[in-house]
Amino acid sequence: MKASQFFISTLKEAPAEASLPSHKLMLRAGLIKANASGLYTWMPMGLRVLRKVENIVREEMNRAGAIELLMPVIQPADLWKESGRWDFYGDELLRIEDRHDNPFCFSPTCEEMITDIVRKEVNSYKQLPKNFYHINTKFRDERRPRFGVMRAREFVMKDAYSFHADFDSLKQTYQDMYDTYCRVFNRLGLQYRPVAADTGSIGGTGSHEFQVLADSGEDVIAYSDSSDYAANVELAQTLPLSGSRAEPTQTLTKVHTPNVKTIPQLVEFLNIPIEKTLKSIVVESENDGELVLLLLRGDHEFNDIKAEKLAGVKSPLTMAAPEWIMAQFGANGGSLGPVGFKGKVYADFATEKGTDWVIGANDDDFHYTGFHFGRDSAEPEFVDLRNVVAGDPSPCGSGSLKLARGIEVGHVFQLRDKYAKAMNATFLDNNGKSQIMEMGCYGIGVTRVVAAAIEQNHDEKGIIWTEAMSPFTVVIVPMNYKKSDDVKNAADQIYAELQAAGVDVLLDDRDERAGVLLNDSELLGIPHRIVIGDRALKEGNVEYANRRAGESENIAVSEIVNLIKAKLA
Amino acid sequence: MKASQFFISTLKEAPAEASLPSHKLMLRAGLIKANASGLYTWMPMGLRVLRKVENIVREEMNRAGAIELLMPVIQPADLWKESGRWDFYGDELLRIEDRHDNPFCFSPTCEEMITDIVRKEVNSYKQLPKNFYHINTKFRDERRPRFGVMRAREFVMKDAYSFHADFDSLKQTYQDMYDTYCRVFNRLGLQYRPVAADTGSIGGTGSHEFQVLADSGEDVIAYSDSSDYAANVELAQTLPLSGSRAEPTQTLTKVHTPNVKTIPQLVEFLNIPIEKTLKSIVVESENDGELVLLLLRGDHEFNDIKAEKLAGVKSPLTMAAPEWIMAQFGANGGSLGPVGFKGKVYADFATEKGTDWVIGANDDDFHYTGFHFGRDSAEPEFVDLRNVVAGDPSPCGSGSLKLARGIEVGHVFQLRDKYAKAMNATFLDNNGKSQIMEMGCYGIGVTRVVAAAIEQNHDEKGIIWTEAMSPFTVVIVPMNYKKSDDVKNAADQIYAELQAAGVDVLLDDRDERAGVLLNDSELLGIPHRIVIGDRALKEGNVEYANRRAGESENIAVSEIVNLIKAKLA
Repeated sequence: MKASQFFISTLKEAPAEASLPSHKLMLRAGLIKANASGLYTWMPMGLRVLRKVENIVREEMNRAGAIELLMPVIQPADLWKESGRWDFYGDELLRIEDRHDNPFCFSPTCEEMITDIVRKEVNSYKQLPKNFYHINTKFRDERRPRFGVMRAREFVMKDAYSFHADFDSLKQTYQDMYDTYCRVFNRLGLQYRPVAADTGSIGGTGSHEFQVLADSGEDVIAYSDSSDYAANVELAQTLPLSGSRAEPTQTLTKVHTPNVKTIPQLVEFLNIPIEKTLKSIVVESENDGELVLLLLRGDHEFNDIKAEKLAGVKSPLTMAAPEWIMAQFGANGGSLGPVGFKGKVYADFATEKGTDWVIGANDDDFHYTGFHFGRDSAEPEFVDLRNVVAGDPSPCGSGSLKLARGIEVGHVFQLRDKYAKAMNATFLDNNGKSQIMEMGCYGIGVTRVVAAAIEQNHDEKGIIWTEAMSPFTVVIVPMNYKKSDDVKNAADQIYAELQAAGVDVLLDDRDERAGVLLNDSELLGIPHRIVIGDRALKEGNVEYANRRAGESENIAVSEIVNLIKAKLA
Repeated sequence: MKASQFFISTLKEAPAEASLPSHKLMLRAGLIKANASGLYTWMPMGLRVLRKVENIVREEMNRAGAIELLMPVIQPADLWKESGRWDFYGDELLRIEDRHDNPFCFSPTCEEMITDIVRKEVNSYKQLPKNFYHINTKFRDERRPRFGVMRAREFVMKDAYSFHADFDSLKQTYQDMYDTYCRVFNRLGLQYRPVAADTGSIGGTGSHEFQVLADSGEDVIAYSDSSDYAANVELAQTLPLSGSRAEPTQTLTKVHTPNVKTIPQLVEFLNIPIEKTLKSIVVESENDGELVLLLLRGDHEFNDIKAEKLAGVKSPLTMAAPEWIMAQFGANGGSLGPVGFKGKVYADFATEKGTDWVIGANDDDFHYTGFHFGRDSAEPEFVDLRNVVAGDPSPCGSGSLKLARGIEVGHVFQLRDKYAKAMNATFLDNNGKSQIMEMGCYGIGVTRVVAAAIEQNHDEKGIIWTEAMSPFTVVIVPMNYKKSDDVKNAADQIYAELQAAGVDVLLDDRDERAGVLLNDSELLGIPHRIVIGDRALKEGNVEYANRRAGESENIAVSEIVNLIKAKLA
């Protein structure tokens, strides 16, 4: 492709609304253009990248035996009512009425639609398993669209849905899709981790996220420093501590702590290490009117997903109302503790072996020092209540945990019978008996992959594409293409030879200053660059540079095409 | 592809709601599945066809230098208000409010969006011309969606938009796109005609439709039997007749015609040829309160597009109210005529040379016989007021017209400044002066092409695909694949060899009766079929059949792959 027959539109500065590096760079490099909040056009340069990602995803899905179809983006509300998600989904679901006032939505995902198709098309175990996918436009009406295509409202997703006669078959396809996703992200050249994940609002059990590692990621991943274990930080488990509880060195002492309502205030007021404090969280019990007290170390982060799963705790997790707390503890939040509390008490594993704790006294403006479990209160039940921190032992039993930030680009779920049951998707098994299908779903955020790749691969000059994703594999940058016949002839010749060799090459024949062309080539991030100028050409050379390595070297004109071929081989 | 790894879902009978052959066959062959009124899933078999059409369109657009991008389907109302189409478009535009109650629409076409992008990106004549296109989902909220994907609500369209510094440049690109569309439809193997067309609601001047010829088409095309001339029947012109007016043989005579209100009633009551009657149509003048009388032969079809363009006629064309007619003619519709009428009278060319007409007497329940222009009324102005009929002289001056039915699958427009002016899309010309851009737009209904191809190419057994569009080029149909080792081995071998040769081949290894497999292969319409059965195999043969030709012949197993290669060469 010659730039003069294409459309390159770069900016020196990113628009002020962009904060994330990928967002800035995608706007500056002219990959996307904002049309409205959370709505973007993929400009010609960006679309080339998007299509390369899409094609790799399609090839690997086909290789895994998944079958492509294309479902409509506008979907009838009836199906969403059958699954219960019409009410559950909230404002993110873009609801639409047609000219006859019939309700529809713009599909954010397709569990209902595919389940409807499969329940009508599949009757027998002989037709199972089947794994259908499509690559199509989705819409989620984000409250606050941001970060460009990273969290846009309209986006492209590959979503696959598998249907099975039994759980073993689902597990097999789940593993195939897991492996397929690894192949996709390996081919794209991305640093990523598959991590065990909470299933969130899609529901079901068993799920992994595929996280592209990047400092700007919104998600935090915990992974073992000596095994493959990785999990979303909210899901990674902490383990009970070994050894026995330390002997107390203090007695329980009530101290006046006026206006101390928070752990930081307590630490400052008493001048104690935060690790010696216990914080109290009070939630509702499943027994009406009863409360449950949750205790964890002052420096630890409470994990509500874990808390919600505890026996006797009301689900969804519900914080106790202030008047209930006053009635049962005799104090307000900020001065609470287990001493004298008659209800169920859970304490985090990390508190089990410690002593001499500082804790609320159930009396406003008073705390206890020298608290000891078992001596000053009943022994609580010790459980996992907090987010892991770096250095925690890995729950896999091998090594300790490190934390990293990631961007979720893929997600695989074992949905089991969540949709199939609600929508009565049944088949006849080999005994002629009607059974509910098992179901899995598998998504890749195709547009988001592009942004995530840039988050992971860029420098101060611009994007650094992998060969698999780059809009072009090679860029030829001639200096004075319009004025120097030698430069033009050499550029045209190398361009023709690379094209003949099947290389995806851009000849930047724009009539721009050398500085603009060179800066743009770095901003655009094309992996291999050939600069052609009169001076080097007089000595029979052109200049080759690799965008990632950054080094630049003189190469004989007669050798450059072979060099490129060798690098791409 | 093996059928066991794919998804084939055929029906013996089409659902009752389908009337058009293509709709029935697409449902029966499992190409599409209805999800709701006007909403369809492209099932795996159908998607293969859709992608083949899409790829040919993309290749030819790229070859013509058009540049692909991808605009969002959800578009802000503001842009549509700028062009005036937010109000003009009516109920077909699917209007949507997001969670913040901001108005959007689901794009039925993208003139506004692309004009917004181009006015921001293009400043100088040096950047022009540019021709951008995308292939994307569109939505038109049809009042009565019908005929399957022929008139669905959600559909896939290729839409291109070109921008120019002057009209000559627009005309050049318009011609390029016209030629490109011819290449696309030639490659698809369709019988079609590019026809001069009215521009309809998109507006502007200069436009051609690409019509796939099919008896079930909704459009009627007039074409010359001895030139390339073709036009939408509503746009084809009639010519003035040569020669002089016939001498009258009757005198004006008023006859009582009780309860005669229509031309058929008049013909029956007086027992006269319909060609001797004149019908009167009364419309409003641009001068308030005045009426215009339009006269044409009773057997001819009134053309309101032509009438609206007549000097002095109010636009949009407005039929006169009954009370105005009574006031100015002294009679009700059904008995109207030119005798005594003081306003402007237009008469169709076809009436100019005739005489002895039967016409309304401007007196309820009375008509005149023996009417003669110029003698019994003032001489009217003779103009083109009707649709052409078969046998009319071609307006190109060569041959006479024939009529055919067609399905519109493509449309090219010279929009000129319609959108660019409303949205202030300007550039600096080579004198540094700001100018409005010239603009063209070019659409292909990608999903509709599939249905149109079937309308044109089918028989009582099913679809007859061209090689370019068929979901598979070759189908291997083994009889008893699961039970006969010989059949299985031969089928697997031929399948492997065809695959190795790059042929898009389907091996139908389903465990179904021979009749089902053979009927399905004909229903699916794959051009080349190889049937493998034990009996022929014993003699070293397989059976080859071409779906279109229908003939079937025995071919040596050793020769079949070469035969297929030769046919595809």
